[in-house]
Amino acid sequence: VTTPDVAAIIDAHCDADAIDLDKVDRESIGAGNDVIPIVEQIIENVARSNPTAASFVHYGATSQDVIDTALMLQLRDVVALFDEEMRRLVVALARLAVVEAETPMAARTWMQHASPTSFGFKVAGWLDGVHRAHKRVCALYDAIVLQFGGAVGTLAAFGPRAQSVAQAFSVEIGLPLPAIAWHSTRDRIGEVATTLGLLTATLGKIARDVSLMAQSEVDELREPNTPGRGRSSTMPQKHNPIACAAILAAAVRTPGLVATILAGMVQEHERALGGWQAEWEVIPQICMLAFEALDHTTTVISGLEVRHDRMTANLDVTNGLIFAEALTFALTPTVGRRSASELTKRAIQRAAAERRHLRDVIQDDLEIRGKLSKADIDAVFDPTRYLGIASETIQRVADAALTDIAVDLITVPLRDKK
Amino acid sequence: VTTPDVAAIIDAHCDADAIDLDKVDRESIGAGNDVIPIVEQIIENVARSNPTAASFVHYGATSQDVIDTALMLQLRDVVALFDEEMRRLVVALARLAVVEAETPMAARTWMQHASPTSFGFKVAGWLDGVHRAHKRVCALYDAIVLQFGGAVGTLAAFGPRAQSVAQAFSVEIGLPLPAIAWHSTRDRIGEVATTLGLLTATLGKIARDVSLMAQSEVDELREPNTPGRGRSSTMPQKHNPIACAAILAAAVRTPGLVATILAGMVQEHERALGGWQAEWEVIPQICMLAFEALDHTTTVISGLEVRHDRMTANLDVTNGLIFAEALTFALTPTVGRRSASELTKRAIQRAAAERRHLRDVIQDDLEIRGKLSKADIDAVFDPTRYLGIASETIQRVADAALTDIAVDLITVPLRDKK
Amino acid sequence: VTTPDVAAIIDAHCDADAIDLDKVDRESIGAGNDVIPIVEQIIENVARSNPTAASFVHYGATSQDVIDTALMLQLRDVVALFDEEMRRLVVALARLAVVEAETPMAARTWMQHASPTSFGFKVAGWLDGVHRAHKRVCALYDAIVLQFGGAVGTLAAFGPRAQSVAQAFSVEIGLPLPAIAWHSTRDRIGEVATTLGLLTATLGKIARDVSLMAQSEVDELREPNTPGRGRSSTMPQKHNPIACAAILAAAVRTPGLVATILAGMVQEHERALGGWQAEWEVIPQICMLAFEALDHTTTVISGLEVRHDRMTANLDVTNGLIFAEALTFALTPTVGRRSASELTKRAIQRAAAERRHLRDVIQDDLEIRGKLSKADIDAVFDPTRYLGIASETIQRVADAALTDIAVDLITVPLRDKK
Amino acid sequence: VTTPDVAAIIDAHCDADAIDLDKVDRESIGAGNDVIPIVEQIIENVARSNPTAASFVHYGATSQDVIDTALMLQLRDVVALFDEEMRRLVVALARLAVVEAETPMAARTWMQHASPTSFGFKVAGWLDGVHRAHKRVCALYDAIVLQFGGAVGTLAAFGPRAQSVAQAFSVEIGLPLPAIAWHSTRDRIGEVATTLGLLTATLGKIARDVSLMAQSEVDELREPNTPGRGRSSTMPQKHNPIACAAILAAAVRTPGLVATILAGMVQEHERALGGWQAEWEVIPQICMLAFEALDHTTTVISGLEVRHDRMTANLDVTNGLIFAEALTFALTPTVGRRSASELTKRAIQRAAAERRHLRDVIQDDLEIRGKLSKADIDAVFDPTRYLGIASETIQRVADAALTDIAVDLITVPLRDKK
Repeated sequence: VTTPDVAAIIDAHCDADAIDLDKVDRESIGAGNDVIPIVEQIIENVARSNPTAASFVHYGATSQDVIDTALMLQLRDVVALFDEEMRRLVVALARLAVVEAETPMAARTWMQHASPTSFGFKVAGWLDGVHRAHKRVCALYDAIVLQFGGAVGTLAAFGPRAQSVAQAFSVEIGLPLPAIAWHSTRDRIGEVATTLGLLTATLGKIARDVSLMAQSEVDELREPNTPGRGRSSTMPQKHNPIACAAILAAAVRTPGLVATILAGMVQEHERALGGWQAEWEVIPQICMLAFEALDHTTTVISGLEVRHDRMTANLDVTNGLIFAEALTFALTPTVGRRSASELTKRAIQRAAAERRHLRDVIQDDLEIRGKLSKADIDAVFDPTRYLGIASETIQRVADAALTDIAVDLITVPLRDKK
Repeated sequence: VTTPDVAAIIDAHCDADAIDLDKVDRESIGAGNDVIPIVEQIIENVARSNPTAASFVHYGATSQDVIDTALMLQLRDVVALFDEEMRRLVVALARLAVVEAETPMAARTWMQHASPTSFGFKVAGWLDGVHRAHKRVCALYDAIVLQFGGAVGTLAAFGPRAQSVAQAFSVEIGLPLPAIAWHSTRDRIGEVATTLGLLTATLGKIARDVSLMAQSEVDELREPNTPGRGRSSTMPQKHNPIACAAILAAAVRTPGLVATILAGMVQEHERALGGWQAEWEVIPQICMLAFEALDHTTTVISGLEVRHDRMTANLDVTNGLIFAEALTFALTPTVGRRSASELTKRAIQRAAAERRHLRDVIQDDLEIRGKLSKADIDAVFDPTRYLGIASETIQRVADAALTDIAVDLITVPLRDKK
Repeated sequence: VTTPDVAAIIDAHCDADAIDLDKVDRESIGAGNDVIPIVEQIIENVARSNPTAASFVHYGATSQDVIDTALMLQLRDVVALFDEEMRRLVVALARLAVVEAETPMAARTWMQHASPTSFGFKVAGWLDGVHRAHKRVCALYDAIVLQFGGAVGTLAAFGPRAQSVAQAFSVEIGLPLPAIAWHSTRDRIGEVATTLGLLTATLGKIARDVSLMAQSEVDELREPNTPGRGRSSTMPQKHNPIACAAILAAAVRTPGLVATILAGMVQEHERALGGWQAEWEVIPQICMLAFEALDHTTTVISGLEVRHDRMTANLDVTNGLIFAEALTFALTPTVGRRSASELTKRAIQRAAAERRHLRDVIQDDLEIRGKLSKADIDAVFDPTRYLGIASETIQRVADAALTDIAVDLITVPLRDKK
Repeated sequence: VTTPDVAAIIDAHCDADAIDLDKVDRESIGAGNDVIPIVEQIIENVARSNPTAASFVHYGATSQDVIDTALMLQLRDVVALFDEEMRRLVVALARLAVVEAETPMAARTWMQHASPTSFGFKVAGWLDGVHRAHKRVCALYDAIVLQFGGAVGTLAAFGPRAQSVAQAFSVEIGLPLPAIAWHSTRDRIGEVATTLGLLTATLGKIARDVSLMAQSEVDELREPNTPGRGRSSTMPQKHNPIACAAILAAAVRTPGLVATILAGMVQEHERALGGWQAEWEVIPQICMLAFEALDHTTTVISGLEVRHDRMTANLDVTNGLIFAEALTFALTPTVGRRSASELTKRAIQRAAAERRHLRDVIQDDLEIRGKLSKADIDAVFDPTRYLGIASETIQRVADAALTDIAVDLITVPLRDKK
């Protein structure tokens, strides 16, 4: 038989349906991996049709070549899938940021009201993280390479034509040929893990924020409300933020899995004992958790119910104390910041003690009123006047993210959302 | 006072020696961070010399702006330090790989002898990982940016000139201005953690290999032996591989710390409660462990004692079984691989049962001897004849790594090492 | 010299002030641990005063014997410290649970209002976890044992009297003698780590709840408000929950550290290379984080500001929907639960659509009004009528916890707190 | 219908085969868990046969009651399974330790030959860890309790008979009723995770040792050699230690999973958002990895191939340097330990420099020979004379472990193994 014939014969037997998977299952325990029994079955099957061809099955390769290359083919698809889905999320976030650019709401630091911000500005922060996560995911394409080294990485079984075989195989299968086999040099796998780990954590931050804003007392955001979604088995009024739960669960689980991959990278010699085997279920889990989180985030952001009235109402729950910094800086030009701080502190202490609105307290405070006109005071308590560079920042963040994925937001009908 | 005067006055008081650190320590518990009491002391100190100037200390900023920017200034130095030290390690590894390119030794898979390889090829695998780790570290320069957003990221306190202030500050301090403040978007910090995590794991693999090769029974490598190094308190003959211990300890500790940073990225709103604070000691620990591991690795690789006689001797500990794959592929052209495998298996079973060297068994095996000439058999048991693409691969890996750091190995006197 | 004399001479030189710590620092890098240079200095110092005695310093021991025994002496104090402080926390929680037994508030599931509960019941849940954590901490006393095995665990250097020496040393130092040396069997260290890991996580849950209840919109709890505590560098109104931040940061950091100890337990042979060394800084960190979290929790619980008016007010933020389950079960005896569910669902949908209070909607719903008397409806919307077994459970949990620490809550003046 | 009738009707429909699992799968995404759609199907199914009975399905319970109780029923079986299998492992280890009590071998510290030990003593160290791990697993029985609290833990839906219902349910299902519902107090789940984490790490240590001793150059132990076990796809001589690989992979993976459970314990309010959901797949993984590791360890220990000739031969690979401590302490009674150390150091340096056996060097060293008789020197180089308390320790450890599981080793035919 000629070489092309041999290849064709082997190819004809590389058919998943022809493999006895139960046998693979039984034998993989003793063999230490799945590929050994699979290869053995293929050899047997080929041998039945052509004994000569059977001699060339798995020729010069090692089982890790097969396992790692199969993983890489899967990861190539995984990266493409994330790339595509993340583009959708970038667009959804950019749109939401721009639409809500001027929606005032309470910013919260240390889980306490701080100063006003805009909802669009908050979303721009989410987008900023997702944008970088997308760039990191795209950089993973470079980590997807062929594994082909034979028993110990040197391709010794192929003799002088080894490098040519490797190059031809690389072209055939469509995976770049790396400079050297990487059976126990696992940083590319580590990079997949850490990149997706950073992505899931970035999505977890969004879900944490959404879930905090969806609390009954806050009620500024609600997950998309389709019938039956988020229902309880006993409390009929419930609309649980189940997407946030799934995203947060992924964010809780992923760090430990990433740590496992890093720990497993300390591999022995030319093929590891333990560290490599630990990757087999962990890498798929990291991918699946990240994609589940991504998919849920896109769903939530695309269909988010934004409750502007609650954002407005919540700005007032501290009886005006959220405007304390604004008051300080309104007083500063006249009295200097230190005195401004003193005046403000006195006013907020009085507001707290008397359970009155800060604005009312100021009306009574002759010293402050001597420094601020009514228009000044109006401005202090108008959250839209204390948004700083929010609008231009949102535009900058959205432009940067959309430019990178070659989308022009102008073509997207934004305003119909509000 | 003019603005430049104010700046000069404040600058004069930004002096670590003028800060009462005990007071900072006491007050930081109640304040929640170190910067608040530090800023308060600076304001007091400035106020004593010029009350007007005191109004402009920390104007419009928030304490996290200070903490994060300080961290970024430190990380900029950290990255430069790693970049420099890793160049040294790349050169040391490239040199070692080239020098030992043709030193045969046993390759080990699953911690068992597999087939021959060369020590230089093994080192090229280490270099390949370190090379990529270096590129990743250099990519961190892009993650080093200014943090400057004020209370909630909008720079609202600065009014219309906020963006100009931010740009001027960025130029002054020498850190790029990011598109948006990142108080609770921590992926850049995460990227520092994961990049160094990948580095430490890559070094851990080298240390694992070195320590396995340094075992008393293997004794192919020894850590540099300076007087007193690796001594025991009770066993006078000991030369413990203490650098490997330190590197491996770093590799054990780092995954959990990286996981902590990823877990902490799920931060609340505009400033987090817990996740941010968790970074404060963990990021320095990750940096210090990685650098300690790097420093030890460079020391070990630069001064490694390579025992060629032991590498040669160990190739024989399996009584020739390490050449089993070579035997199979030597027989394959004549009888096909399947028969070759059968002949080989029979020979190795006999060698094991009779505790004889595989070569001696083959001499008695008429069927095998009918297929292989004496020269063929010599070749099977000559490890230098079964190194495949090792030499060209080593050259390729070394060239790629050295090109990236613009070093020409030809200028380095290699051969004097051997 | 006699044996007692030798002991006295050595003892006189076991003085931290007599050790050159800088030298220890310098030499520990090459020695691989701190004890080797310390022992060497002691030997030198003793030798200067009595050469014979110097021969008996560190006789038959190994440096790990010293390091591990020192660790165990510290851990014995650590456990006692936790035991004592946890008793305080148990009392504080039991008192709070009993005092607040009948304070109705909203229970939240999936971060959404669910049904009413009492604040005391919530606290009883915290206490229940802390009670078990305390029992686990007390069980650690059994893990505190002597390490004394010499070079490889067999005490071979001591000849036939080895076991007697070990027993005498055990009595002298006050640590139980274990059945066998445990240089590389580290599960006791692992148990310290996991036990404190469970404790810190248990405290993290409390801090998470407190911080959620302290949010500006919820405002049911506030951390103890001492002057300056939780202040901001720019927002004068802030009272940041800094204790919660510290506890939550500890809870974020500890899992990775516990994982490190577990990963490090896979130790080589009679003394490990990497795994043991990884413990040295990690165990102290786990202890310090746990104690910091514990200390903050005791402070928070002991001085917690409970805002009953806000708890009452928040029960109403869903316009009565929090009573939906109560309504269902009020209707159930008459119409069966399935019809009751249907009637309830219809009512809550109408309440949501018309933005009316559920009670008002029911008033208009003739079908429901036909089944429930006015008293029945009053009961449905009275949260104190839907607390189930809360009171008796609180008593049971408090009794169990207090009995275990032999405290009688009756002796504690409870009511003056409210 | 009467209550017993209702119960019987519902019971008849609680049949896994009657549930449309595809529907459950589809609906669980929107519901947030599996139980809600399952309960809904059961209600529908019961309703078709008896509408009244349908009203009592899942009465007063919440879906987490079902999920957690199901988990606890599984964990009860899991603990029993571990308990039983660990007894087997304890017996196997005890037997091996006693049989090999006097088999001398090299002890290794820092992965370097240290002093002689016996193989049985090494095994006793393994047994000591497994013994404590077994006691910890048995303590888990106390952590297995009923979850039954209804929507928010108070069983409010049941009215005044709630506690009686709970007690009856507890008796019926055979799980103890805890003092309070634990929907968001997850330390019992955490204890399962940490206990199994400690176990897997303890087994990982054994596998690490076995795999190190199975290396080609060491070859003191081999995994049980059944046909085909540990084969390679290309190297016919391979017998890979596949059980060790599986155990070590479990030990690499488990710490991250335990950390996940600890991190997830920081749960919100009465039912968590993310932390609880994270447990669902992680707890089963921890259990399965631990059991896989346990099963493999029992197999390895029960069928371990112990190669005494290699243990003896390896004692000599350092040319007698392993006896350096023995030499020191043999010289000590005559010259004091400090001089003894000096004499020993001189001898080992000469042995190393001249590549001669330490014994031969001593023969030439008049100063040493003046202190030691030929019998003394024989004793120094006889490893069986330097085993210290090994034998009595092995007996003590074995007795303690076997007593705890009520096995008398005398009844086990030990000696036929050697």
